[in-house]
Amino acid sequence: MKPVARWKIINSEFAIDNRWCKVRRDEVELPNGVRVDDYFVNVRPDVVLILAVTPDREVVFVRQYRHGVGEILLELPGGTFYADRETCLEAAARELEEETGYIARTWTHLATLYDNPVKDTNKIYIAIAENALEESYQQLDITEAVEVVRVPIAEIIEKIANGELTVAGTISALLMGLKYLNYFDIIPRESEPEKSTDSVNSDPTQND
Amino acid sequence: MKPVARWKIINSEFAIDNRWCKVRRDEVELPNGVRVDDYFVNVRPDVVLILAVTPDREVVFVRQYRHGVGEILLELPGGTFYADRETCLEAAARELEEETGYIARTWTHLATLYDNPVKDTNKIYIAIAENALEESYQQLDITEAVEVVRVPIAEIIEKIANGELTVAGTISALLMGLKYLNYFDIIPRESEPEKSTDSVNSDPTQND
Repeated sequence: MKPVARWKIINSEFAIDNRWCKVRRDEVELPNGVRVDDYFVNVRPDVVLILAVTPDREVVFVRQYRHGVGEILLELPGGTFYADRETCLEAAARELEEETGYIARTWTHLATLYDNPVKDTNKIYIAIAENALEESYQQLDITEAVEVVRVPIAEIIEKIANGELTVAGTISALLMGLKYLNYFDIIPRESEPEKSTDSVNSDPTQND
Repeated sequence: MKPVARWKIINSEFAIDNRWCKVRRDEVELPNGVRVDDYFVNVRPDVVLILAVTPDREVVFVRQYRHGVGEILLELPGGTFYADRETCLEAAARELEEETGYIARTWTHLATLYDNPVKDTNKIYIAIAENALEESYQQLDITEAVEVVRVPIAEIIEKIANGELTVAGTISALLMGLKYLNYFDIIPRESEPEKSTDSVNSDPTQND
């Protein structure tokens, strides 16, 4: 097997260097000596996603238009930030208040994930906000229209299963965060699964 | 509140139109009449991620270098495809065999998610492969180096919690898929959570 190892950047320049879009074109050398002269990387600011839970066992969501896919989607609140200007929890508190008007008492940085590590540079920080209350007001800029939607924790699994929640970062943050907060148990079953037993065959020789 | 509604594309052109990178620059009109003349969208092919489970209750992972973030990561196998050329399950079977050498008997399209619906056009199709066996061999191209790693289902939750699994699409597919297959139970708790009770305060007046 070829070794799994980092690539070496031989040369790097910006193909687009706009305030809203930075695309880097890298010339790289692979561990096996192969050179690729146009590997494109989107240089993007980090993102913080906020799992805010109210005292009434509800999660605070936002519903807004997303132009990349041209759809109106239900997601966790969030936004971009720069780690040299604010911490991820400072950014989380700011974004939660601006997008939803909610303020939370207890903040935890749960995890740092990636969206698309193949093509994008950014991380997704997952912040947990406990005891969130609507004590402020939305502060949106002129290009933003955001509907705040509270969803009972008991309905989250159904909304993931039925396709109302479709963004991978939001789904990961919900399942990891609600487990961390002990609102969910996630329990591996010891016994054989019940689904698809007709087509599961543990003896490979029967398929030859 | 401003209405949550789709934007209208007034004009659209490619800022980069390369085989490996297509960046569209849209001039858009928002529902409130505001115009934005440089909204950038990455036009990307759809992705299929494969949750392949073996008869020994293991999940098939791949470990490889990801140049966007410059890290070696553990992820579910997957790849890009074009819906006008093959179905997501045909693409899934092809990618699983090419990347890992595994072939599966039972295939299910579980869900269709988004990575970054703000900036990217692509969807992520989640495919479930049951009764996967190593009956073929890796077929990698010269730029690929992929280590195949099998992980027992019982260790998945720990690997998400400890940060060994960090990609949102992979985490979503694992938690949704292992629940769908009845390997996991995800159960909302009825009682109050045990964590952070010191700082949770259900009476907002006490915080004034």
